Amino acid sequence: MAVTRLLPAWRRSRRTEPDRSDPFVAALVAALSPDRVRVDATERRLVAHDASIFGGGRAGPVVFPETVAEVQAVVRLAAEYDRALVPRGAGTGLAGGAIPLAGAVVVSTTRMNRLLSVDPVNRRAWVQPGMINLDLTRAVAAHGLHYAPDPSSQQACTIGGNVANNSGGPHCLAAGVTSQHVLAVEVVLPDGRVVVLGGEDPEPPGLDLRGVYVGSEGTLGITTAVLVRLTPDPPAVTTLLFGFDTVTDGAATVGAVIAAGIVPAALEMMDRRITRAVEEFAHAGYPTDVEAVLLVELDGPPGRVAAEAAAVERIARDHGAGYVRVAADDAERALLWKGRKNAFGAISRVKPDYYLHDTVVPRRRLVEVLEAVYRIAEAHDVIVMNVFHAGDGNLHPLLIYDAREPGAVERVHAAGAEIIEASLAAGGVLSGEHGIGVEKRDFMNLFFSDVDLEQQARVRSAFDPACRANPGKVLPAGHSCADIAALTAVPDGVWV
Amino acid sequence: MAVTRLLPAWRRSRRTEPDRSDPFVAALVAALSPDRVRVDATERRLVAHDASIFGGGRAGPVVFPETVAEVQAVVRLAAEYDRALVPRGAGTGLAGGAIPLAGAVVVSTTRMNRLLSVDPVNRRAWVQPGMINLDLTRAVAAHGLHYAPDPSSQQACTIGGNVANNSGGPHCLAAGVTSQHVLAVEVVLPDGRVVVLGGEDPEPPGLDLRGVYVGSEGTLGITTAVLVRLTPDPPAVTTLLFGFDTVTDGAATVGAVIAAGIVPAALEMMDRRITRAVEEFAHAGYPTDVEAVLLVELDGPPGRVAAEAAAVERIARDHGAGYVRVAADDAERALLWKGRKNAFGAISRVKPDYYLHDTVVPRRRLVEVLEAVYRIAEAHDVIVMNVFHAGDGNLHPLLIYDAREPGAVERVHAAGAEIIEASLAAGGVLSGEHGIGVEKRDFMNLFFSDVDLEQQARVRSAFDPACRANPGKVLPAGHSCADIAALTAVPDGVWV
Repeated sequence: MAVTRLLPAWRRSRRTEPDRSDPFVAALVAALSPDRVRVDATERRLVAHDASIFGGGRAGPVVFPETVAEVQAVVRLAAEYDRALVPRGAGTGLAGGAIPLAGAVVVSTTRMNRLLSVDPVNRRAWVQPGMINLDLTRAVAAHGLHYAPDPSSQQACTIGGNVANNSGGPHCLAAGVTSQHVLAVEVVLPDGRVVVLGGEDPEPPGLDLRGVYVGSEGTLGITTAVLVRLTPDPPAVTTLLFGFDTVTDGAATVGAVIAAGIVPAALEMMDRRITRAVEEFAHAGYPTDVEAVLLVELDGPPGRVAAEAAAVERIARDHGAGYVRVAADDAERALLWKGRKNAFGAISRVKPDYYLHDTVVPRRRLVEVLEAVYRIAEAHDVIVMNVFHAGDGNLHPLLIYDAREPGAVERVHAAGAEIIEASLAAGGVLSGEHGIGVEKRDFMNLFFSDVDLEQQARVRSAFDPACRANPGKVLPAGHSCADIAALTAVPDGVWV
Repeated sequence: MAVTRLLPAWRRSRRTEPDRSDPFVAALVAALSPDRVRVDATERRLVAHDASIFGGGRAGPVVFPETVAEVQAVVRLAAEYDRALVPRGAGTGLAGGAIPLAGAVVVSTTRMNRLLSVDPVNRRAWVQPGMINLDLTRAVAAHGLHYAPDPSSQQACTIGGNVANNSGGPHCLAAGVTSQHVLAVEVVLPDGRVVVLGGEDPEPPGLDLRGVYVGSEGTLGITTAVLVRLTPDPPAVTTLLFGFDTVTDGAATVGAVIAAGIVPAALEMMDRRITRAVEEFAHAGYPTDVEAVLLVELDGPPGRVAAEAAAVERIARDHGAGYVRVAADDAERALLWKGRKNAFGAISRVKPDYYLHDTVVPRRRLVEVLEAVYRIAEAHDVIVMNVFHAGDGNLHPLLIYDAREPGAVERVHAAGAEIIEASLAAGGVLSGEHGIGVEKRDFMNLFFSDVDLEQQARVRSAFDPACRANPGKVLPAGHSCADIAALTAVPDGVWV
């Protein structure tokens, strides 16, 4: 007792649960309701990480607002008590963007998951940020519409998270990624004002702040509603699967299809290792004796789909496809996709943990960078499997490991960093669709000049001068809102 | 002599040409060369207006930099002497965006008109901002590529101006407007730093400042290079022309074509008046006894184009098209386009002046808004003709008048304001593709909330805290950089 009393107040509470009589917590409870402000250690530990391999998260109170007014109330209280805020959807992010640092308040959008309105004529819908991607597609299916971006996590990830990360997916080759499907965003700014960025028209007048918001990973404010574009279901769809003796042949087929003026709905490649793992897990009928499989989906009016399918098959055979399979019906189509969509589940049979990487390289340098990826993984004694959006050069090397093995995580991190450098050296890009988060924050200097980054920091400050919105993410050390230690008023240890 | 000496220095120079020994002008001359810094009244009068009906321009020195370093030098001198800057391409803008206010320095890009590099494999090119739109398409034609956005002014307008206004054109229905074709922009910021916004990848990591820059009308900096996306020439093209007894039938055809899942390359409508004027001028063979003509262009692989052309023809006939013409060859295609592309030239035979309006309305409300446009024009005793991008609801009412008639300009302005209000009341947008400039600046309040505009102003300030880049444009009075009088250190009268 005596010893504790000598410690400053915040020291005393180290490793204990924060007191609900903490005036900040009490104010949050008054603004929302007791059951929607969680401070217990278990709850906070649940939201201290995302689907990435990055740790270091330390959550403050976890709040569950249900209305724009409640989000405003939380944001204003955070401003009053000088706390950082992290919006959180389903926590499926792969770059650590939703990890709360240094006791930030976690603003969960799980209770804001409704479809607000649908305009089937103009193919638009207003949705709340916590709505799950696939639920949106299901909700508008009766109108013959769907929401086009389909991340592999679409059964779990939210529209708000998709906006934050400008998410892609297999069908984004022809359809475009999230930014092409978001017309407007309602946002509570870090000072509590509510702003609408963008508008009903795809090219609204004035400065287009919609574009800068999509992909900003929670650093500019908290999304409270999204106006999405809906896409008509295609009248006809065909799915084809090809097997090649070399990855080079598969990549050449991809290039030739696009050079022929055909833009498939999806163009996915998988290497031998991941194909075998998938086949053992999902039994989709994938060939296991080839070096690469290529999954091609074509959609549109029936006549066009038939003509393009014939052309794609011819091109693939010309480029050495020894295995050709054309889905005969919807059941077979679903089966072929089952293989691709279960790739990440399948690898758990190999090792318990994985790190899913994400870079983009010019299509013509795919093969060369893939070879570098295999070399790098081997040098670091890490198993690598490759599944990727071949059509746009978006690589997703899967580094597979067992975190319980001493040194495994460090080897994976080292290999990941070298893969980034190899991709950039080939004229590639830091991130395809998973965002920057904490994962790639300190690689931003490899990609942008200091002036470029400084200008990004200035624009961030125009939204969030006090650095309260997801600080410590995206912009690297040395730029504003990057230095967590300097940003938080919460003493280390209180929110363990 | 005695009288003049009593006047302050700047008073003495009223209505005379600024002295080249003015230290600011001398510094510009030292940084560039004497022939590339123009201060004579004629030269400055030439750049004091654009293609709009807005006056009030007053140019300071007109400079013609040739390199990024020279643009930097000009911008830094402007900062040192606290002068405003207006970048200027071809001056074909229709909203007054390039009009220099209060003696701003006019930075002409006409000497920065080169193609810097072409990457035909990845279909990209770096171009200087002063390159003319059509020159770019011609320069890459040998690669089977073209630059997709095709404003009606494409023979004169520049890529830099297209970026500033996020310009569209007839072929932007399927292809998308400028923002979809610009991957990166090199910009000299108002403090002289050089920044690259965006990157080779369509979805670069970090904050996407490319999106906010495209369409910012010179208010964020001066473009010195643009990375554009090039589009493969379509293997097949078909152009069809339909005539309808009512505008309603034409509009219903547009809706039905899009509902059928067909996205034509272009979908242009013209009313009876403009069709007659065009036919008398261009002799394109348009029918003159119909209420509306619809020009439809389809492109893509030959099989698809043929199938879609048959479908579009069937839909048009089902919706009452009494006149149907399918271009038999390229010569006939060119003739059909000649009518549409000469619409603005044709009307000079009716009256010497025109005001080309630009709003967007939801497609399903096209007919209703068109009827309102006719009523408004009649009430103000102004002739109106309509030519528009029907596919995306982008109206271009042409108000035709003779500026020499007393009160004509005022009546046109009054009608224009009512057309904006009618469009917005129908759920429309302030501007389709011509920008805000000075024309629609003070209508921005009808479209955006104060918080929305304030956030746009803050982002503008993150680029240009001193309000030196094209002040007085885009953002309405009451927001930063809107008040010209407070912004310029140039006393009224020096730069007449």
